[in-house]
Amino acid sequence: MTTVYPVKRRQFLIGSAGLAGAAVTGLPAIAQEGGKLPAYVAWKDAGDMIVHTDETLETMRAAQGDALVTPSSDLYIRNNLPAPSEEIVADRDAWEVSIEGVAEPGSMTLGELKLLGSETVVAVLQCSGNGRAFFDHEASGSQWATGAAGNVIWTGVPVRAVAEALGGVAADMVFLTGTGGEEIPEGLPPESIQVERSVPVEAMEQAILAWDMNGEPVPLAHGGPLRLIVPGYYGVNNVKYLKRLAFTAEESPAAIQQTGYRVRPVGVSGDPSQPSMYEMSVKSWITGPLEDAETGEVRIEGLAMGGTSAVTGVEVSTDGGESWQEAQFLGPDMGPYAWRPFVLVADLDAGTHTLASRATNGNGDTQPETFEPNERGYGHNGWRGHAVDVTVG
Amino acid sequence: MTTVYPVKRRQFLIGSAGLAGAAVTGLPAIAQEGGKLPAYVAWKDAGDMIVHTDETLETMRAAQGDALVTPSSDLYIRNNLPAPSEEIVADRDAWEVSIEGVAEPGSMTLGELKLLGSETVVAVLQCSGNGRAFFDHEASGSQWATGAAGNVIWTGVPVRAVAEALGGVAADMVFLTGTGGEEIPEGLPPESIQVERSVPVEAMEQAILAWDMNGEPVPLAHGGPLRLIVPGYYGVNNVKYLKRLAFTAEESPAAIQQTGYRVRPVGVSGDPSQPSMYEMSVKSWITGPLEDAETGEVRIEGLAMGGTSAVTGVEVSTDGGESWQEAQFLGPDMGPYAWRPFVLVADLDAGTHTLASRATNGNGDTQPETFEPNERGYGHNGWRGHAVDVTVG
Repeated sequence: MTTVYPVKRRQFLIGSAGLAGAAVTGLPAIAQEGGKLPAYVAWKDAGDMIVHTDETLETMRAAQGDALVTPSSDLYIRNNLPAPSEEIVADRDAWEVSIEGVAEPGSMTLGELKLLGSETVVAVLQCSGNGRAFFDHEASGSQWATGAAGNVIWTGVPVRAVAEALGGVAADMVFLTGTGGEEIPEGLPPESIQVERSVPVEAMEQAILAWDMNGEPVPLAHGGPLRLIVPGYYGVNNVKYLKRLAFTAEESPAAIQQTGYRVRPVGVSGDPSQPSMYEMSVKSWITGPLEDAETGEVRIEGLAMGGTSAVTGVEVSTDGGESWQEAQFLGPDMGPYAWRPFVLVADLDAGTHTLASRATNGNGDTQPETFEPNERGYGHNGWRGHAVDVTVG
Repeated sequence: MTTVYPVKRRQFLIGSAGLAGAAVTGLPAIAQEGGKLPAYVAWKDAGDMIVHTDETLETMRAAQGDALVTPSSDLYIRNNLPAPSEEIVADRDAWEVSIEGVAEPGSMTLGELKLLGSETVVAVLQCSGNGRAFFDHEASGSQWATGAAGNVIWTGVPVRAVAEALGGVAADMVFLTGTGGEEIPEGLPPESIQVERSVPVEAMEQAILAWDMNGEPVPLAHGGPLRLIVPGYYGVNNVKYLKRLAFTAEESPAAIQQTGYRVRPVGVSGDPSQPSMYEMSVKSWITGPLEDAETGEVRIEGLAMGGTSAVTGVEVSTDGGESWQEAQFLGPDMGPYAWRPFVLVADLDAGTHTLASRATNGNGDTQPETFEPNERGYGHNGWRGHAVDVTVG
């Protein structure tokens, strides 16, 4: 199991790959800001990334800025297992996916899937542990601040179109289960590390099997040739290198489903009775300024997302939450699963100002001030934890 | 003046830098597909680009695909003069712009401009000569096919907010004139090569001074630290490295305004009485398949833009225009100046099929079948010229 290190609010490595990941990959022990990128993501913008480990790379908060779409070169990486060989993207259209739990189960190639329908959706991709650094307890895993999240354009075939083409979902299937194409190291029981996740079957309404990301074939590092995208759901449910899509009566037996990604009190082990990391919550954070600014008018920028319901507004405070002002969204509304950049120009006196943001979504949910600790440090959306102290003068 | 070379429908160099450009830069003579990128754009995706010259790089048609937003690494380059030194983006917020033709003219830094207001707009950037390769006459300039165009996210301050902050536009000013920060080689009269363009002052309604492109600071190669963006207008009007923004009573005296980018009959010289390349037209093109496909269902994809009025629909023909079917738009509508990807799955028999697309915009304008030749090969939006012959079987 992962080790807990006594380091907080720093961007140093803390375990990270979850389960047996660290043992499998022999991860380096120290994170680097703007550090050396692993070879499989050498094409990323090193100056914008924090390299926690070879399998966990975070976008720098300042680099997130007010980007409507996160450039692929800046998008975070979080792998539960090392990425498969580049060979699997040599002939993308030949990639095969097994489709099960439908009236006529079978195997389809990516080339065949492309003929069943196409949809482009803009959706936030966010790790369950994004914001872990803002908890006060020592939750194991990468100490993500805000950068294990990005707003991404996905193109693929709707899962509902795939089900329809194969005669519809079989009776009594209440989960949509995706299985990743990672190689399972010999000697380990597959359930112990297999990346296989089940989400409620209702999520098929918005789910797609994506072959393009930000206008290009999905890079291997992000799950190409084919990734299951469940808009509104945490990153782990968006299974990479999808080799099997199954409508199932039960949740996956994999540890990552049964005991991993379960929300429970600090000190408690994961078990299937606890809530799984499914739907994301309303959330926002300021991306600039983060440290200092000149006295007078200051342009405050940030990002706001609604989770599974569109974000409808975001307020900014420059006095640690004593008072709030409505910020302005920038750019077009790209649908309920996308984030919206925001900006507010505020007049700031000399001194230290605590800048915070607080978003609201279409369900009427607003970010809470604080967020209860949980064992693994999942889902933090408290506005106070995400606030920044800025020195003005 | 530029020389006309007797080469058509090939991606070889044909003049290209316009005016005295070739003489100034000593451009290489042969274009390369997936060739070596010049150092200042070494960060582009070489596999997706056609290198016409150091100052003219085109996105490959197949790489355009059905991208909602063109990745910066794939966006075309067309410079009238070589880019200035990297030094001008070392301290972006210190970049100064002279603002003239307002009640209180003066100079503002980029840092100051950022406090006047922010807007994010998605707009097609397209070279006036995009589609030049589809004319039958020998128009001088780079033989762009479809790849001198991209759909780009721009963030900046609205020009109208800048004018308002400086007391409003002075009386009798009917043009908005932008001057680029390129270095003018010694010994040449500035008017002969200065990049300075005037557009009708009404365009200030949608124009912005942009500091971010696709979520990152505008790269030097694309006009950073600050570029004038006039949504709906051809690329040349989107002045790079903007050092002066002036509301003027007359058009710029620069050759690029007076005689360049003028639409006139073949064989006629440019003069100010002819229409300037301002507003873009409704246009679309297929990006795949481009050469061959297997018999049966084929996924046809492409891109459609409305010009200054939003695109409202696009039809696809698989029989050279004998019959048409409505295609489906992909992804969110990102506003009137953005393009929309489209897709249609069609059943194709063995043989050669001529695939064409035909878009319509909110004004009711539809792409014509053919497009009258003009001396410089500007503005081609005829659907037949953009059609592709695909071998199915």
